[in-house]
Amino acid sequence: MKIVFSRTQLSHAPQQYGVHGRLTKPLENPDRAQTLLERLTEEGLVHREPDDAGLAAITAVHADHYVEFLRTAYGRFQTLKNAGPEVLPNVHPYHSGAPVLGMRPRPRTTGILGQTGWYIGDLSCALGENTFDAVYASAMTAASAADLVLSGEPAAYALCRPPGHHAYGDRASGFCFFNNAAIAATRLRRVYGKVAILDFDTHHGDGTQAIFYDRGDVFTGSAHTDPTEYYPHFAGYPDETGRDEGEGLNLNIPLAFGSDDADLLKGVDRLADAATRFGAEALVVCAGWDAHRDDPLSRLNVTSDAYARIGRMLGALNLPTVIVQEGGYSLAAVSECAPLFVDGFTSASGRAG
Amino acid sequence: MKIVFSRTQLSHAPQQYGVHGRLTKPLENPDRAQTLLERLTEEGLVHREPDDAGLAAITAVHADHYVEFLRTAYGRFQTLKNAGPEVLPNVHPYHSGAPVLGMRPRPRTTGILGQTGWYIGDLSCALGENTFDAVYASAMTAASAADLVLSGEPAAYALCRPPGHHAYGDRASGFCFFNNAAIAATRLRRVYGKVAILDFDTHHGDGTQAIFYDRGDVFTGSAHTDPTEYYPHFAGYPDETGRDEGEGLNLNIPLAFGSDDADLLKGVDRLADAATRFGAEALVVCAGWDAHRDDPLSRLNVTSDAYARIGRMLGALNLPTVIVQEGGYSLAAVSECAPLFVDGFTSASGRAG
Repeated sequence: MKIVFSRTQLSHAPQQYGVHGRLTKPLENPDRAQTLLERLTEEGLVHREPDDAGLAAITAVHADHYVEFLRTAYGRFQTLKNAGPEVLPNVHPYHSGAPVLGMRPRPRTTGILGQTGWYIGDLSCALGENTFDAVYASAMTAASAADLVLSGEPAAYALCRPPGHHAYGDRASGFCFFNNAAIAATRLRRVYGKVAILDFDTHHGDGTQAIFYDRGDVFTGSAHTDPTEYYPHFAGYPDETGRDEGEGLNLNIPLAFGSDDADLLKGVDRLADAATRFGAEALVVCAGWDAHRDDPLSRLNVTSDAYARIGRMLGALNLPTVIVQEGGYSLAAVSECAPLFVDGFTSASGRAG
Repeated sequence: MKIVFSRTQLSHAPQQYGVHGRLTKPLENPDRAQTLLERLTEEGLVHREPDDAGLAAITAVHADHYVEFLRTAYGRFQTLKNAGPEVLPNVHPYHSGAPVLGMRPRPRTTGILGQTGWYIGDLSCALGENTFDAVYASAMTAASAADLVLSGEPAAYALCRPPGHHAYGDRASGFCFFNNAAIAATRLRRVYGKVAILDFDTHHGDGTQAIFYDRGDVFTGSAHTDPTEYYPHFAGYPDETGRDEGEGLNLNIPLAFGSDDADLLKGVDRLADAATRFGAEALVVCAGWDAHRDDPLSRLNVTSDAYARIGRMLGALNLPTVIVQEGGYSLAAVSECAPLFVDGFTSASGRAG
């Protein structure tokens, strides 16, 4: 299997992460990708650089004005009086204000401070001087992995970083700026009529869900920690089942705190089943390793072995597949889980990497 | 004129204020109220403590679940791992998510972190151990001032602090937790059929606007710095004119950066005119002194004299009036402006304080 990655992705090196009322060090850092690249190439995956698929690969999913914001935000933010070292939001639109004040689909303000609050939803997306280049490269990695699959590879690993599944069409959040999985899925749609995105990161893929919520061509499913007391808090509940043409095509499987391998596997099994019933012709896997019990963000009790079994489960679907890297913040755990997953996946699909 | 104030309002003493990508010292601090109380009593206003009008005075304007959040947030937040010293939000709902994900009218999450992001819209509302007591007292100050007017005083000064006009029915923002002006106006509505709220704080009163946006009994008008590059960024534009029964009953007058006394006075004159045409029988004045050119937040070029003239303009309406304290962050400027305003108001209305 090929693994797509660009070192440009490492240039996003945020210094601040706001959580629980403090500014602290980000968990989503360049070391994660570096470690995964080393381990996965040791396991035999063949590294290749992404091609530049151009901005069009991104604007197929994201609003032009949002992309333009990300491209220009750092420089504009620095013009603010006593600006901090990174773009961080401090003011957000009223959640119920959209219908009242005609807030959609873009902010009325042209000012950088208001736009920052509009386009960046939380304090986990510090945007620095090199962030745009890194997230652009991460998106190209996803697009290139999809292109590999379109050109006949049975599967490809997009070592995206920063991750993507919390990015909405016009908002960054949860460490994510561009929705890499959505970009890959949109690419696959050029050839395949029906694409499924299955997400086993321990956080609900709220951005992905929102992007495809009313569409009939892309199934989205996520097994994740119950958001009632866990990020992303506002979405990821089972009654979010899609809308209009997408009705019935979004499946959320929240797992209670403390859930173990069996619980997670049962969830992924339901996702795989649903994708099959949908008639998926191609697959995007949102692969996060942060349900692992050693992960600093995990509230589950999942072991490395679960990832080998998830790999086999998804490999057995025998679909053209783009594996997109999402979360996973323990370097020790990700070093173990990612290779186990890939081994499981390739063995079950009967396709040597 | 009587000035209502409780020292409990000073117990909200936030330590952090996030702005321009940094955490810094709050501008909205107890000294403001202390200074105003001293200067206004020197000028002959008679201090009195607020009565306890009860939670019902607040829930007449604010959602029960929001009030309950503010009451319990500090204790609940402290149970988070490595919690900071104050409640500060770090994750916010997707602005366009409400219609998609059924987010209204309250968060689905019961967790404190998600609720914090739902109910607190920015980094200017650090909530500490005593914040609830202080904002409750500030609301009681507004209610008591309204009650004084209902009992026959021609006017009363509610020295509210923290301020209120950025507080929505279910969200804190912009230093504000409870919307004191809305509470006073709701109180006045017991007797007066039509109430106008006129706001000359340099920031648009977005919370007040939203609370009364579709109501026919309360006119809201605000003259403020153009929000295009200024707080509150997302509202305060002239085409926000009200909705349904409130159509035509919201008037926004944005002033360009650098506007002077004449510009502000022209704006307030238009507000007063509109209130008269509406047929207002009673008035709530949102009095902020932060348009003053010496104010650290001001982008206008307004002098102290403007406030004497605004006072005369609003006093000349000869309506039962509750003056509600909003912003103003230069102690020197507020010391000058507030007494000038009150003098102007009482002289024009022909009513000795």
